[in-house]
Amino acid sequence: MVMADAGCDVTLWGRDEALVRQVAEERRNSKYLPDVELPAMAATTDAAAALAGARIVVVAIPSQVARRTLEPLREHLEPDAIVVSLMKGVELSTDKRMSQVVAEALDVPDERVAVVSGPNLAKEIAARQPTATVVACSDAENARVVAEACSNSYFRPYTNSDVVGVELCGAVKNIIALAVGMAQGSGFGWNTTATVITRGLVEITRLGRALGAEQETFAGLAGMGDLVATCASPLSRNHSLGKYVGQGMSLEEALEATGTTAEGVKSSRSVLELAQQHGVDMPITAGVVAVLHEGLSVDEMARALLSRPQKSESIAD
Amino acid sequence: MVMADAGCDVTLWGRDEALVRQVAEERRNSKYLPDVELPAMAATTDAAAALAGARIVVVAIPSQVARRTLEPLREHLEPDAIVVSLMKGVELSTDKRMSQVVAEALDVPDERVAVVSGPNLAKEIAARQPTATVVACSDAENARVVAEACSNSYFRPYTNSDVVGVELCGAVKNIIALAVGMAQGSGFGWNTTATVITRGLVEITRLGRALGAEQETFAGLAGMGDLVATCASPLSRNHSLGKYVGQGMSLEEALEATGTTAEGVKSSRSVLELAQQHGVDMPITAGVVAVLHEGLSVDEMARALLSRPQKSESIAD
Repeated sequence: MVMADAGCDVTLWGRDEALVRQVAEERRNSKYLPDVELPAMAATTDAAAALAGARIVVVAIPSQVARRTLEPLREHLEPDAIVVSLMKGVELSTDKRMSQVVAEALDVPDERVAVVSGPNLAKEIAARQPTATVVACSDAENARVVAEACSNSYFRPYTNSDVVGVELCGAVKNIIALAVGMAQGSGFGWNTTATVITRGLVEITRLGRALGAEQETFAGLAGMGDLVATCASPLSRNHSLGKYVGQGMSLEEALEATGTTAEGVKSSRSVLELAQQHGVDMPITAGVVAVLHEGLSVDEMARALLSRPQKSESIAD
Repeated sequence: MVMADAGCDVTLWGRDEALVRQVAEERRNSKYLPDVELPAMAATTDAAAALAGARIVVVAIPSQVARRTLEPLREHLEPDAIVVSLMKGVELSTDKRMSQVVAEALDVPDERVAVVSGPNLAKEIAARQPTATVVACSDAENARVVAEACSNSYFRPYTNSDVVGVELCGAVKNIIALAVGMAQGSGFGWNTTATVITRGLVEITRLGRALGAEQETFAGLAGMGDLVATCASPLSRNHSLGKYVGQGMSLEEALEATGTTAEGVKSSRSVLELAQQHGVDMPITAGVVAVLHEGLSVDEMARALLSRPQKSESIAD
């Protein structure tokens, strides 16, 4: 929708024959976006047809099945196509970032893989509400091409070359959203929320720097922007799950109440291990792990965070 | 309250005899914080008595009357006292930051003037909800002394040496809060809010760097932290006024509806002039000025912001 509204010639590939036909013929998607009038676009269940002549290929597939879905499509890809990943998180079996998974599965060099991330709650984009985003690619010209292709009257892309930083933001923000949810579930207000978001971003930034990402990326749309949108929206699963835990539920009860697996529950432990390997201090992440997996209460977590030795505000310290 | 809860020996100075007696004798302030049980502290209407022996003097007076309130107290100040300003904004007649006003009015050198700022909505602090803050002073040891004096089980100070950056954050955040209010008043959701906060912080940061402040301060508790708390809280005047304008009121109608002067209305024009003098691009601030003072509609402002030339995300660009 965003790219068609930006004037691109778009073909949607999907597997549900009826839905694909509805998108192409009625400009509607009654299953996921019943209230949205889509722009004109082609749609097909034939991946080879969709990929023929495609200069930009945008991939939005559940992260854990991306590799096996993409591999069979490799032979149909145009040799100079730019591939864009909208996927968040890491592939659990390999710990690889999604742009790495895409590059491997489609056999495309890194400089032709871009990622897009920002304060981009899907329902609000579908309502054509104004927002901005980051298009990151190690090749600046390819970032520019993708940004131009999705720039329209409600969607404003900024370019960035820090792919690692942008993808890291998307993976670890869920842990901070869990912590914010816990604070709000405990009955705390905006001071506590803003403190957890700000100091959470400081510790994510510290990890990012240790892994070779740029500090500025974390203060940008994929970092702070996405975090603010995620923590403010009642739609975020991690945020909701944290709230239930803050209200006194056990992890098991909270998982049952949310009805889904919240990404941050799984990733918090591996992010903390990664931080320890790099000698990076992540007190909020450590608190989330202790509450979710080691029986610490949210009250005890808050007390532990507030009683740490006095510190300078700097990310470097 | 924060310092007494941190174990300091506190004397409150005030001019309302009855209120001062109530604080000292009943540990209550029925006028401003009727539901809060205050810690034990002395209270007096005699400024000389309050200042005698005081190692730390905390000043919280309306910004525009600070200078003339403080000048007569100069002679009572202990010669080595550290003075802490909690005041936001600038003195309109001189364009000086409040720490400069305090230093001049009390004849104290800069290295003994500290400022405190962060996500610190007064009502939530009074409810003893956990929060963090920044204590900034050009002298690191004095920052440490003040931080220690206000560190307690719900209030966590971090030190910083960037006084200019911390005070600038407090002065310009109101303009971004106005812009966020306008977006929300227009019916936009969290994507738009998060985008305005993030890109607003980028342009404040750009101005700050031009004025000699540190980039990192803006990503910290006094910058991002205070901005998130201000934009999320329904208590902020600038945010409320922006909302009314976004809903279609004129500035005059919105000022009447909020019943007060919102700081950002006055400061937006002078901040934009300052930016122009330093060759700094501040598109959101310019949009706020155009809407409030030049009759642009919020819709036209949004369209103008979204149709700007494509850019890199970097603060340096």
